[in-house]
Amino acid sequence: MICGTAFHTPVRGKLEILEGVLISVDGAGRIAEIISPQNPDFAEAKTRAEAEGRLLELPANQVLLPGLVDLHIHAPQWPQLGKALDVPLEVWLQKYTFPLEARYSDLGFAREIYADLVAGLLANGTTTAVYFATIHMEASLALAQTCLEKGQRAFVGKVAMDDPDQCPDFYRDKDAATALDEMRRFIDAVRELSPANDPLVRPVITPRFIPSCTDELLQGLGKLAAETGCLIQTHCSESDWEKDFVKARFGKTDTEVLADFGLLREHTILAHSNFVTDGDLDLIRERGAAVAHCPLSNIYFANAVFPLRAALDRNVRVGLGSDISGGHSPSILDGCRHTLMAARARQGGVDPALSPADRGVAHSQITVAEAFWLATAGGGEALGLKVGKFEPGHQFDALLIDQDAPGSNIRTWPELDSPEDVFQKIVLNAMRANIKRIWVSGDYVGRSD
Amino acid sequence: MICGTAFHTPVRGKLEILEGVLISVDGAGRIAEIISPQNPDFAEAKTRAEAEGRLLELPANQVLLPGLVDLHIHAPQWPQLGKALDVPLEVWLQKYTFPLEARYSDLGFAREIYADLVAGLLANGTTTAVYFATIHMEASLALAQTCLEKGQRAFVGKVAMDDPDQCPDFYRDKDAATALDEMRRFIDAVRELSPANDPLVRPVITPRFIPSCTDELLQGLGKLAAETGCLIQTHCSESDWEKDFVKARFGKTDTEVLADFGLLREHTILAHSNFVTDGDLDLIRERGAAVAHCPLSNIYFANAVFPLRAALDRNVRVGLGSDISGGHSPSILDGCRHTLMAARARQGGVDPALSPADRGVAHSQITVAEAFWLATAGGGEALGLKVGKFEPGHQFDALLIDQDAPGSNIRTWPELDSPEDVFQKIVLNAMRANIKRIWVSGDYVGRSD
Ligand SMILES: [Zn+2]
Ligand SMILES: [Zn+2]
Repeated sequence: MICGTAFHTPVRGKLEILEGVLISVDGAGRIAEIISPQNPDFAEAKTRAEAEGRLLELPANQVLLPGLVDLHIHAPQWPQLGKALDVPLEVWLQKYTFPLEARYSDLGFAREIYADLVAGLLANGTTTAVYFATIHMEASLALAQTCLEKGQRAFVGKVAMDDPDQCPDFYRDKDAATALDEMRRFIDAVRELSPANDPLVRPVITPRFIPSCTDELLQGLGKLAAETGCLIQTHCSESDWEKDFVKARFGKTDTEVLADFGLLREHTILAHSNFVTDGDLDLIRERGAAVAHCPLSNIYFANAVFPLRAALDRNVRVGLGSDISGGHSPSILDGCRHTLMAARARQGGVDPALSPADRGVAHSQITVAEAFWLATAGGGEALGLKVGKFEPGHQFDALLIDQDAPGSNIRTWPELDSPEDVFQKIVLNAMRANIKRIWVSGDYVGRSD
Repeated sequence: MICGTAFHTPVRGKLEILEGVLISVDGAGRIAEIISPQNPDFAEAKTRAEAEGRLLELPANQVLLPGLVDLHIHAPQWPQLGKALDVPLEVWLQKYTFPLEARYSDLGFAREIYADLVAGLLANGTTTAVYFATIHMEASLALAQTCLEKGQRAFVGKVAMDDPDQCPDFYRDKDAATALDEMRRFIDAVRELSPANDPLVRPVITPRFIPSCTDELLQGLGKLAAETGCLIQTHCSESDWEKDFVKARFGKTDTEVLADFGLLREHTILAHSNFVTDGDLDLIRERGAAVAHCPLSNIYFANAVFPLRAALDRNVRVGLGSDISGGHSPSILDGCRHTLMAARARQGGVDPALSPADRGVAHSQITVAEAFWLATAGGGEALGLKVGKFEPGHQFDALLIDQDAPGSNIRTWPELDSPEDVFQKIVLNAMRANIKRIWVSGDYVGRSD
């Protein structure tokens, strides 16, 4: 049982401060009860937990946050984090990324990198991760195993990409039939790894993006999703080049093509979606799919900012993605900051030579609480998981933030800062050093000094 | 004497890797000699230093960087870091900022906050800081004293703002004559604090910005600068509201008005300058003034991105500013990342509904090495200081970066990463936790575990 203050945004854009509450967690790692200090049972429950040696009481400079949800990570690109950001998307794939991903045919290499990746993301507060792995069966299974071993909630996808025109010979599925057969075996194998009712690690059907897949593969993956109930992730309308390619091939938008192939389903995760139309947004909402907004990598590779405000106003499901390594930060708290920056840049525009009215896109701004919601509860809703907020029945996936950790850039003054101010300061300045403990399903999974 | 590898960008955009060199520092804290391993004297010099117990040999996972230069910091706004970013500039000043700054009439409060600020900035790698303080004589002197005590190279400015139409009654200079008299006394007092030939801490004449000053005050400050040789800092063409205000009052741009009042001098630091014209850029270059580019706060308050590429192409002096607390990060390494993001957003644009050609401003991109130059040597050149690069005669202001510090997000693999890659990974992912030691003029000023 934990006694302390927790910040969360259970409803989009609404900060709720649970001040000095008791939180109890059941045997399955779910929140059993949240008792406020006003509740007549508070004192007794606290005394009992203390007497039984199962109370963790937080000092005033430590607060709980929900664990962070990263909806879009390319696991094999971890060694490329923070480099190779100097060319357009289509060149970046062929020059840097496909050669790196091809190396994961080496299982030893995969195991080494994936262990470092999962530990690194947990330490940055990512308690739920949605991964693209590579085309390799063994290495992709190793990633799922690593998440299980380290206790990170995860969706792991073996990547499907079979089109010889777009994928290099050294890094491509043999053909659609082989890719489909392997995807089916991968789903089964991941489900066997973690046979629980509510498993920590799950498979996800992962066509890389429309340009890299043949029609036959896309069709087959849609059928496989319907058959297995497995979630889907892919890239959607990411860049000018990409969306124009799809338009030329099908005469339709990415979203429409995905729908045609049965890939736009409840909780399908669409990375980026910068160039979606209003009609696409409506279709995404109707199908219950979700967007993984990746503001940092969009700045580098999309030449545009996702119409986040418009998507939220239409009640489209949205969460955040780091898009490692198209994005150079492994932190979804950084993701909140980049979301705020991208929305402000969209609102205000970039070119001072234009008049203010012509410069940006009105009504694009979002708030700190909205950005944090995207990083937590929004990500949970995108995936259909009960994570990202402190409510009975939800998973106890949480971070303990120590404002005064060595090396902290969070500076607060009790006489100057309201609890709302402290929340903003944490969202805008917390770093890995401030994350003192990490829980997934009630278990410590990182640091506990 | 230090033996190890140093990264720096002595020429704009050109990374130079000093691999395994010996760096010796003279009694005044300047670099005396840099001896490469190919130099026949290398072995003997190293052996001698080692025998005399004055060799610091860096392991392979640690490198030196030049200390960072922050050209624009509002010291009194430190308690506001990471909050109160929800309103436009003119409202932000009146609602949050002037009331906070007015509190520095309390010297005890000022001392407490400034001690925390200077320690925090040093820990983030800022070895040279250019500060706006407040209108208060004693508190502004306390900031200068704090910098001296903690060993941070600094320019400290008592803020001048006397116009009753733009400044609140509770936070304003009494009148122009009083403000000028106090500025003169402040300059003398700071020069007495640190009477050296090449002092660590210097005064800087600081009209807040044109809207907050009367003509009489601006004129007088220009004369004072000519008389004393003291550098000047102010804000320039920051937002639509601000530049329109100046245009209405004078029929000229900020830059032209500053020039008219004798305030556009060699090494005058102009914060922001988002809305400068091409003519302004030429005038800034001719006079030898410099721009403090503050990309994060511009995103929040300027609704535009400074034409950085154009300024660099015209050889205007430019460095980076955090603009605490209009910017929410105290880290100039974050400043490099924000500079890259802002330039990319300017290049690509923000509105996917526009065609690529109409969306952004062509030829706006900058490189990682250029961003780092801005943060180091560029900042040094802006101020006319010999800092920001490893060259004999330059100050030994340096950071020791430990890639494998606890909590590091820098992940490198010897078989995958070239030294250039390591440099990029450091610039894009180093955090306070990675800064293991900080030197200013050859003295340790922070951490040495
Ligand atoms: Zn991606
Ligand atoms: Zn400023």
